[in-house]
Amino acid sequence: MTPPRPLGIDVGGTKCLGVVLDGDGAVAAEARRETPKNAPALVDALADIVGELGSAPAVGVGLPGLIDRDGTLVASAHLGAMAGLRLAARLEDRLGVPVRVGNDATFATWAERTLGAGRGCDDMVMVTLGTGIGGGIVAAGRLVLGRNGFAGEFGHMVVDPGGPPCPCGRQGCWERYASGSGLARLARDAALGGRIGRVVELAGGDVHAVRGEHVQQAAREGDAGARAVVDAFARWVAIGLVNLTNALDPQVFVLGGGLAEGADLYLAPIDRWFTELLYGGSVRPRPTLRFAALGPCAGAVGAALLAAGDG
Amino acid sequence: MTPPRPLGIDVGGTKCLGVVLDGDGAVAAEARRETPKNAPALVDALADIVGELGSAPAVGVGLPGLIDRDGTLVASAHLGAMAGLRLAARLEDRLGVPVRVGNDATFATWAERTLGAGRGCDDMVMVTLGTGIGGGIVAAGRLVLGRNGFAGEFGHMVVDPGGPPCPCGRQGCWERYASGSGLARLARDAALGGRIGRVVELAGGDVHAVRGEHVQQAAREGDAGARAVVDAFARWVAIGLVNLTNALDPQVFVLGGGLAEGADLYLAPIDRWFTELLYGGSVRPRPTLRFAALGPCAGAVGAALLAAGDG
Repeated sequence: MTPPRPLGIDVGGTKCLGVVLDGDGAVAAEARRETPKNAPALVDALADIVGELGSAPAVGVGLPGLIDRDGTLVASAHLGAMAGLRLAARLEDRLGVPVRVGNDATFATWAERTLGAGRGCDDMVMVTLGTGIGGGIVAAGRLVLGRNGFAGEFGHMVVDPGGPPCPCGRQGCWERYASGSGLARLARDAALGGRIGRVVELAGGDVHAVRGEHVQQAAREGDAGARAVVDAFARWVAIGLVNLTNALDPQVFVLGGGLAEGADLYLAPIDRWFTELLYGGSVRPRPTLRFAALGPCAGAVGAALLAAGDG
Repeated sequence: MTPPRPLGIDVGGTKCLGVVLDGDGAVAAEARRETPKNAPALVDALADIVGELGSAPAVGVGLPGLIDRDGTLVASAHLGAMAGLRLAARLEDRLGVPVRVGNDATFATWAERTLGAGRGCDDMVMVTLGTGIGGGIVAAGRLVLGRNGFAGEFGHMVVDPGGPPCPCGRQGCWERYASGSGLARLARDAALGGRIGRVVELAGGDVHAVRGEHVQQAAREGDAGARAVVDAFARWVAIGLVNLTNALDPQVFVLGGGLAEGADLYLAPIDRWFTELLYGGSVRPRPTLRFAALGPCAGAVGAALLAAGDG
């Protein structure tokens, strides 16, 4: 009989995904629940997932937002109603096993580092380009958590202090440009300027309905206006990657999140801008850019690995 | 008889400073040489300093610029003529003891962490605000070097892509704003706008001669225009510190470099802007800002500590 294996759960804005890994790190079993709207229901849903997947010696749970080192949800855009929830303590009481709770992108970083696109890299930065931007840092083979566990919140690095307002209250945060919503914003600006007729057509003729996928589709068809939007977007992504290179000097960047699905379209222009903008580019080894390998399971996989005492 | 102690040397643009530490980490002896203009003379000068300070079981040497993990000077604004110098190997041949060569600001970071303003902090970022900006990172009690040893080059993080050109070839690098030369530039812009008459007076009536120290002096006299320049400068410093907080979540920032001498003038406005701009500031513990404690010896002290196998 195989001994029970660590179990990881990723809590997303709409669903929770639980996984158990086999001895090679492959996903051996999965369970899903809708993400509840309040704290007691979340604890129930997570306990339910654990019940469905069977006994585990330890459980990891990744969530979006600021999670402190005690496993308390300090703040979250998606789970704001649950702020203050001492999730690790609550789940340990309920399940009777050690529970590690942390940021979903930090956990995904560890999964990509261990089993995915950053395998074998001791100095790696993951950037998740989704609705917003998150990420995580591995330095000398260890996950960088920071004093409170909040390291890797790259989306609110200011890259343009005179830029558009961010819901966080500041202006010109990186995720105003380099996220999925940033791409849509760049596209709507171009549409209002009349430069991307085909993209607007794909959005049903409504400039305000323009989204990233319309830009993607038009760019794949070869539309010049859409390609220019992709190029502007790629430049903003590269600016942030260059800044992180200056600070952290990684060997590899792993790009994940929803935009990783458009890898074929984005990787070449991001790579070109990154080379052009890199400080010391002519004399320094250039970090490699790769898209994430583990897909939407990464957060849950990382939670399982870290629950097992990894990292 | 005391056993020989590790020896550290800091190579500056104009002079080299060597130190030996006593058992408490205090500087027990110092030696100085002018910084030579070519590689063989630099190796001679460093060997000379070691000769003057006596035998050492290991030697550390910090230099400005990109130094790789093998101790080769890859690039340096101040020592450009020596690019490619395999300094660690050359000195080991010459001295017959292990030599660790690295970036001066990275080494200063370790000194401040061990003996200075970051003492006891496992998650700390040092930012040196001098002519340019450098720095270093301590995460979970260990120095973050990056893949090549280039981590901590904060000065060329882009904070304003449409901003003034930087000698590095890009636009809007942080050190265009938040360094000593950035302060002077902000002051000259204000002077050309006629807003800081007293500062120009202190610079002998020549707008182009305006430097940071003139701003400092006028601000200390209470001149409103000079205080506004200090405030604008402080905001740019804070923007970079906020970005580094998002990425690294340190407990403490240690601010060093030449501007640390104006600590009384800068700390309060930097602190105010930092609080105002910090992402999640209402819910997260706020990193503490402190000025460096070890002064211009920090690089040499860190070199000695790291040569001893620390870090």
